[in-house]
Amino acid sequence: MPLTKSWVETANDPTGVFPLNNLPYGVFNDGRGARAGVAIGDKVLDLGALEGLGMVPSVGFRNGALNDFMAEGAGAWTRVRNTLTGLLSEGADAQHQLGSFLHSQAVVTMQLPFTVAEYTDFYAGKHHATNVGTMFRGAENALPPNWLHIPIGYNGRASSVVVSGRDVRRPWGQLKGPDDPAPRFAPSARFDIELEMGAVVGQPSSGPISVDQADANIFGYVLLNDWSARDIQAWEYQPLGPFQAKATSTSISPWVVTKAALEPFRTSTPAREIELLPHLRDTGPMLYAIGLEVTLTPDGGAEEIISRTNYREMYYSAAQQPAHHTTSGCPMRVGDLLGSGTISGPERDNRGSLLELSWGGKEPFKLSNGETRSFIEDGDRLTLRGAANGDGYQIGFGECTARVLPALKNPYGVS
Amino acid sequence: MPLTKSWVETANDPTGVFPLNNLPYGVFNDGRGARAGVAIGDKVLDLGALEGLGMVPSVGFRNGALNDFMAEGAGAWTRVRNTLTGLLSEGADAQHQLGSFLHSQAVVTMQLPFTVAEYTDFYAGKHHATNVGTMFRGAENALPPNWLHIPIGYNGRASSVVVSGRDVRRPWGQLKGPDDPAPRFAPSARFDIELEMGAVVGQPSSGPISVDQADANIFGYVLLNDWSARDIQAWEYQPLGPFQAKATSTSISPWVVTKAALEPFRTSTPAREIELLPHLRDTGPMLYAIGLEVTLTPDGGAEEIISRTNYREMYYSAAQQPAHHTTSGCPMRVGDLLGSGTISGPERDNRGSLLELSWGGKEPFKLSNGETRSFIEDGDRLTLRGAANGDGYQIGFGECTARVLPALKNPYGVS
Repeated sequence: MPLTKSWVETANDPTGVFPLNNLPYGVFNDGRGARAGVAIGDKVLDLGALEGLGMVPSVGFRNGALNDFMAEGAGAWTRVRNTLTGLLSEGADAQHQLGSFLHSQAVVTMQLPFTVAEYTDFYAGKHHATNVGTMFRGAENALPPNWLHIPIGYNGRASSVVVSGRDVRRPWGQLKGPDDPAPRFAPSARFDIELEMGAVVGQPSSGPISVDQADANIFGYVLLNDWSARDIQAWEYQPLGPFQAKATSTSISPWVVTKAALEPFRTSTPAREIELLPHLRDTGPMLYAIGLEVTLTPDGGAEEIISRTNYREMYYSAAQQPAHHTTSGCPMRVGDLLGSGTISGPERDNRGSLLELSWGGKEPFKLSNGETRSFIEDGDRLTLRGAANGDGYQIGFGECTARVLPALKNPYGVS
Repeated sequence: MPLTKSWVETANDPTGVFPLNNLPYGVFNDGRGARAGVAIGDKVLDLGALEGLGMVPSVGFRNGALNDFMAEGAGAWTRVRNTLTGLLSEGADAQHQLGSFLHSQAVVTMQLPFTVAEYTDFYAGKHHATNVGTMFRGAENALPPNWLHIPIGYNGRASSVVVSGRDVRRPWGQLKGPDDPAPRFAPSARFDIELEMGAVVGQPSSGPISVDQADANIFGYVLLNDWSARDIQAWEYQPLGPFQAKATSTSISPWVVTKAALEPFRTSTPAREIELLPHLRDTGPMLYAIGLEVTLTPDGGAEEIISRTNYREMYYSAAQQPAHHTTSGCPMRVGDLLGSGTISGPERDNRGSLLELSWGGKEPFKLSNGETRSFIEDGDRLTLRGAANGDGYQIGFGECTARVLPALKNPYGVS
């Protein structure tokens, strides 16, 4: 599918990530209240205002979250996309009416695009699981016994999900090194990122659902950074799994890219080493080819790329996740967020976490300013970007970025 | 504190659990919409109607959930309790006005009392953790290394929380016994209960909070049954913790008993084997003495008690849980539900799960109808009850009960 041209000139720039083929949804505020918008070129089109004028279907765009729109279902998703494609296409009559509803993305504040009902984080990348497992348990026992049979995951904390741009504060936690005689309470010294994609559930379900139904219920995708305190995790995670290590923040991109926009980039999961049980088997290409990169910008320094990978590296697709997540009858709701798990590739520079890039801190990597990194330093900015590459256009998510602030001196506010 | 008498005669019956000293809140529906109510004797007083008439403070009682009331804060909690105590006390002038707002509990339907923001389940009972650890890892390694240092927990699934009375369907899941060559997808054969108390967070927080602040933020307590599929859990839980094993259902009592009602029953956590780090130390009696029992009613058979224990058996209090839960900065919200972990006592008949009562199925226990149980059989009804014993009165929660339905023949609805 080639680029579809828009009368918004910047949408036709092949170096941009918001062409008319994309039309990702977000929630913006220009000081006059939060409402839904769609990104087009370097602009955001005010869907709340258009809904008020009856120019787009009435699906809750004046609310400060996309949940009501998502709840309307796939028919409404298609109708709105078709309407917007019509309004924004090169030569469209609506051009002269819409100028005042287009705002520069540079001057609006993006908010969390949807109310996160619940957040589940999976561990569905084989390169990542193998790297981490090798570091912690040795190469022979790298993958847990269940790993090739189910997309294992844990419930995360929805209250900790924030939109790109919000600073993240280094957490305190209970820490105990393997040779320490007792634990202590201190700021995390091994604070890290995890480069992930997040799938956004747009339709509810109340019992086990198939992979096909799971795919149909997904509204779209975001970039996701699952901030992780490795030292807190090491002490807490046995036997109940990650808890406070993952509860400081999870950052997501402000734009939700729809399944419709990503359709041309569908690709298959890799060959199975062990055949999955029938209820978890892919029925077609359920992954997407989306190029991803992580950059690090030291305080006062220059931004540089520290990892490049691709969403197609995952072993399990987002559709396989609800298929497992619902086996027990677990209800899924509109606004559930499903993290993919860290997306690493086969090579060293494809690794999606500092834990892997520095091999647990044993092999610090160099920055161009001469500094080295094992884990995040205070003042570092970490940024995720991602885009699928079409024929003369890109489908992107905007940035998922945050700066890491120093830990509170005293977390209880008493000096 | 002795019984405070009410003009609602049944509230003065010492065998009842809803005296004027209690005043627990719930949400009921008599066919005219869901609204808040307070239990008094065998009646529920319609707080939505009283709010409409200006007889109680306006705190959102006409909404179908207690969240808005809880969000008003401790001042409002006290004002409403004082108002209700005045209205319902023996000799109160309001008696003649209130008759039409009192409904028999037997004829109304109780709903989930609050919208569960997120659900966290802890593992804070030492008898339970020791029993389970001994079964799985041997007596020497029963308690995980972190257990005596932090109230360990995992994030559960809020969407699966249901009110007492809702049937629970036996789940399917991926199962693999230690000697099975490969996993299979089948109904759970080791479906179980966990007898717990749930603490309901009534005030939000956005950073680390002290044990005192955590206690102040708790609105009240419910009975909680954390239904657990032991065979699903065994295969899935390493290394990310319980997931689908705990996602079928979590049942809670319809009544939230307030901290104010439980105040006379505060008691201390047991002596510490290892001193806790300062941020987790109790500052006073933070547990409650609440007698608890579990009954099992086989399909067509008689109800019988299978376990008796007390909430005071916990090693960690509910207040210590948010103190740990927020260390990383994790935001807590109004309506967060915190499961205590299974409450077992020191003796065999104090065990709060069938896993412990039947010692992993190795020692099936006998029912009075001649049947035995290792785990739950289809058609069994499991009921939790609890009450604190005052001077001539009891403070109870109502039942937390559910019947277990057979697993779906085909979970995907295709025969």
